[in-house]
Amino acid sequence: MLKENILIARGKKPADLLLKNASYINVFTGEIERQNIAIANGKIVGFGEYEAREEIDVAGQIVTPGLIDAHIHIESSQLVPTEFAKLVLAQGTTAIVADPHEIANVCGMDGIQFMIDSLKNTLLNFKMMLPSCVPATPFETTGAVLSGRDCTREVQKKDIAGLAEFMNIPALLLADEDACRKLQGAIDAQKIIDGHAPSVTGRDLNAYLVAGVRTDHECTTVNEAIEKVAKGMYILMREGSATQDVAVLCKAITPYTRSRFLFCTDDKHAEDIERIGHINHAVRVAIEAGLSPIDAIICATINAAICYGFYNKGAVAIGYDADLAVFDSLQTMRCTMTIVDGKVVAKNGKAIVQFKGVEDKKVVTSMHIQEVTASTFNLPCETKRARVIEVFAKTLFTEEKIITIIPNATDIVLPKGILKIAVLERHKSTGNIAVALLSGITLKNGAIAQTIAHDSHNCIVLGDNNKDMALAVNTLQKVGGGIAIVYANKVHTLPLEVAGLMTAVAENQYIAQMKKMVQLSKDLGVQADIDVFMTLSFMALPVIPKLKMTDKGLFDVMQFAYTKVAVE
Amino acid sequence: MLKENILIARGKKPADLLLKNASYINVFTGEIERQNIAIANGKIVGFGEYEAREEIDVAGQIVTPGLIDAHIHIESSQLVPTEFAKLVLAQGTTAIVADPHEIANVCGMDGIQFMIDSLKNTLLNFKMMLPSCVPATPFETTGAVLSGRDCTREVQKKDIAGLAEFMNIPALLLADEDACRKLQGAIDAQKIIDGHAPSVTGRDLNAYLVAGVRTDHECTTVNEAIEKVAKGMYILMREGSATQDVAVLCKAITPYTRSRFLFCTDDKHAEDIERIGHINHAVRVAIEAGLSPIDAIICATINAAICYGFYNKGAVAIGYDADLAVFDSLQTMRCTMTIVDGKVVAKNGKAIVQFKGVEDKKVVTSMHIQEVTASTFNLPCETKRARVIEVFAKTLFTEEKIITIIPNATDIVLPKGILKIAVLERHKSTGNIAVALLSGITLKNGAIAQTIAHDSHNCIVLGDNNKDMALAVNTLQKVGGGIAIVYANKVHTLPLEVAGLMTAVAENQYIAQMKKMVQLSKDLGVQADIDVFMTLSFMALPVIPKLKMTDKGLFDVMQFAYTKVAVE
Repeated sequence: MLKENILIARGKKPADLLLKNASYINVFTGEIERQNIAIANGKIVGFGEYEAREEIDVAGQIVTPGLIDAHIHIESSQLVPTEFAKLVLAQGTTAIVADPHEIANVCGMDGIQFMIDSLKNTLLNFKMMLPSCVPATPFETTGAVLSGRDCTREVQKKDIAGLAEFMNIPALLLADEDACRKLQGAIDAQKIIDGHAPSVTGRDLNAYLVAGVRTDHECTTVNEAIEKVAKGMYILMREGSATQDVAVLCKAITPYTRSRFLFCTDDKHAEDIERIGHINHAVRVAIEAGLSPIDAIICATINAAICYGFYNKGAVAIGYDADLAVFDSLQTMRCTMTIVDGKVVAKNGKAIVQFKGVEDKKVVTSMHIQEVTASTFNLPCETKRARVIEVFAKTLFTEEKIITIIPNATDIVLPKGILKIAVLERHKSTGNIAVALLSGITLKNGAIAQTIAHDSHNCIVLGDNNKDMALAVNTLQKVGGGIAIVYANKVHTLPLEVAGLMTAVAENQYIAQMKKMVQLSKDLGVQADIDVFMTLSFMALPVIPKLKMTDKGLFDVMQFAYTKVAVE
Repeated sequence: MLKENILIARGKKPADLLLKNASYINVFTGEIERQNIAIANGKIVGFGEYEAREEIDVAGQIVTPGLIDAHIHIESSQLVPTEFAKLVLAQGTTAIVADPHEIANVCGMDGIQFMIDSLKNTLLNFKMMLPSCVPATPFETTGAVLSGRDCTREVQKKDIAGLAEFMNIPALLLADEDACRKLQGAIDAQKIIDGHAPSVTGRDLNAYLVAGVRTDHECTTVNEAIEKVAKGMYILMREGSATQDVAVLCKAITPYTRSRFLFCTDDKHAEDIERIGHINHAVRVAIEAGLSPIDAIICATINAAICYGFYNKGAVAIGYDADLAVFDSLQTMRCTMTIVDGKVVAKNGKAIVQFKGVEDKKVVTSMHIQEVTASTFNLPCETKRARVIEVFAKTLFTEEKIITIIPNATDIVLPKGILKIAVLERHKSTGNIAVALLSGITLKNGAIAQTIAHDSHNCIVLGDNNKDMALAVNTLQKVGGGIAIVYANKVHTLPLEVAGLMTAVAENQYIAQMKKMVQLSKDLGVQADIDVFMTLSFMALPVIPKLKMTDKGLFDVMQFAYTKVAVE
């Protein structure tokens, strides 16, 4: 191949493909160059006049290096990697840095291996990071634990690029033994350590960096970004489904800081990727916010390639891998063609390739809940006042509300506007269950259950009656996890059979199913401005104030302690 | 250490060292920041107010990351690495990318191992590249050969950072089997390949890049640099003893291309390093030529760190290695202090550390010349005209001059202004010897011999009489190689006992000896503007036109063929 490419580059043999009349962004000179691009054996072999077996005229369009997502939890798309890849390739993304934090919490290293094996079946380039915080907190029951010893062993492996976002900041700042072992393991293996340090500043930030962390995707202000860049971090500007920071953070980019900014999505739903795009959307947002298009493309390509060691990627340059994206314009960033390894893999927003899914029994047997009955959800409460989780639209923060109730030794009678919420441990058949009260979501004669519940991904269920809640949970047990809605005595499911988090059905089929589930939730009474699936998915994460609940009980995040529904 | 550094960064324990009132260059923001720098366990752990066991006030000075030489043949300093390191550390250089091309030509892998072992004994950080062209040409006899198979095996080793400057461009462009094997070996090992591509452009440059080459240090014009950067190369701006390109090349630096420019010295004599500096001198030249001081420091530090994978180096940032240089000002770039791994290693231009030299028999037994006599240098010439190598001051190019002589079947009688030059194979006792004529250097009643003769480093000798030439060569055989001058019937030597290229004496002692040898050459009649040792060292390199000579005979570079002294 080397010999042949040398001869092709010299014009002694025809190339495989010639992109004619290309206007491409040169990330090294900051200029838009107008030349044909010759490709052979997956490499860019020349610019200018070349003969080729195939020609594609891209006049009037913009060619960029394939875009790179510097931090993504594929699981948030609810698609297995072999389907997810089609979605993002169609948007011009040709490489990702994946953090399999969700599946790791359910299936441990087996889950990570499934993600690696699956991505290897695709044409999407990837770096796989090792989740650093499994479990995320000691207040919940996960399917797996990755200890300091585990991490030190696994991070050395060839398929692991580094240690994923180190979220346990309190443990790090206290120089906790197990936390330090994880960090030291990655340092010794000479691999990158990703950060997750919202609002960490000053000496605490110094301590965080001394521990070897090199990136952060939790910045939300210009000042925070500048301090972090000045101290040596790469800033991953996030534009995901739940959180959008690009428009603000790109204001921190100067000709000097530019090389330290990357894009990421962190969590992005499949339907959002299909509708508004992936990293191309982040680029669009940055350009709309005033960043120069060239700078935006640099952040989306070569910067990420350098930060994460994608050698020979991130640039339209000779000898580089022929991973390219073609957009109709830098304003719309609508992807008209994606090329990976010299082959056209997507056209006009649709993948034209299929990838073989990985069949792995270890990741489709994650549901272990014994059959429940209506009485499982009984909530005895013998006081006159009760504690309620109050949720709001468009925020993951909750409040605590105290309501008056009629004491009942068997099961509380739900006052108007109050729902029951329960978390059932699903990994190890412990039978752990916690039942509590919730307000802020309307829902009538039905229940919604799901096995997506950060970070342990136990089974969470919301309803206004015990019977429907039981039906929803029992149905999820049968289908292997996913989302179940009981509406008008009928149960509707969106099975997520892989770890209860992802499905292997085709991406377009999943998106259609998901739209149906959203409609069903609205039919059930959920307000228009509430994404009930996302709200539920964060209700079991005991780190965002104020009241959350895990399989072990109602949790007061501010007090950092369990609490009770009953208020004396 | 990690645990302790976390606590120190948080101010819970004192740091080891505080650089007070530092004005340091932040390569990530492009600003000069004014803060104390706290150091512990070899790392930068904080900025601002910190307690420390030791404080050094650097008010009024400039602190930069330790400088990096991106390409150097240490052998050109004629000092073993343990002495060379002291010289460059004293100038603020804390890391180098070494290409042991010279010793590899003499001692093969044993020589490279000696360089690695020696550098490991120092505090100078390094990456060791594997010489790619040993021998450089087939027209000379080297001490060792590194074949494609050898390179493929060796480049995989942990101590080898990549494949050194790939000089054999004709072989590459023809996709020669052995050349491609070397390149493919480095690609497969995922290691960097350095280039050496003077004036290579267009499709030939494309072919060169497709072969995996990523850097070039042979650029001499802005246009050449821009084409190479645009196509994906890093440009190493050279400022060495023989060649100075910085003042020109730094004009190609823009806010976009900046990250692709580095500095190197390639070849720099010890006395030049001591007198005018090392990479700090290159920075000074760039600033004088109009490059912003911040940009110059960026090229000299983080750019090289990123290009060659010096992780945690190249920046004054938290968690980075405490490798720092302190200069009196950005204009003078006079190094007042160098810190490596948190320890002060040099002050006011002098190293304050000593490194243990490596004793290795394999590299001190490189001389294998049987005793010669005056008649060894007889040059019979029965024609009336003879071919003479004509040399000039300040260029490595030579011309061919035809002179009239009196035919002599035993030994030519040297006309006025004509000297004899001879190359004797010294590696394998082949007895190979070539004798020819040279003009352009004056020399009276004496001879100069040396074992530095690129790239094979055979023994080269220049003289106006056979007896002195024989004495010079026999003396070098006795002392194990180096430089010998016969003047007024007395022989003076500068032994370079390591491979006939380097000495293990202390750097200051060597520099004093070398100054004496220069004086002796002047006493012998060599013109003031001629560096006779450098001229001789390039006289045996059959790639620079027009007439050169190897141990196999007089060589016409333009004809790419051997020729004769006698002109019919």
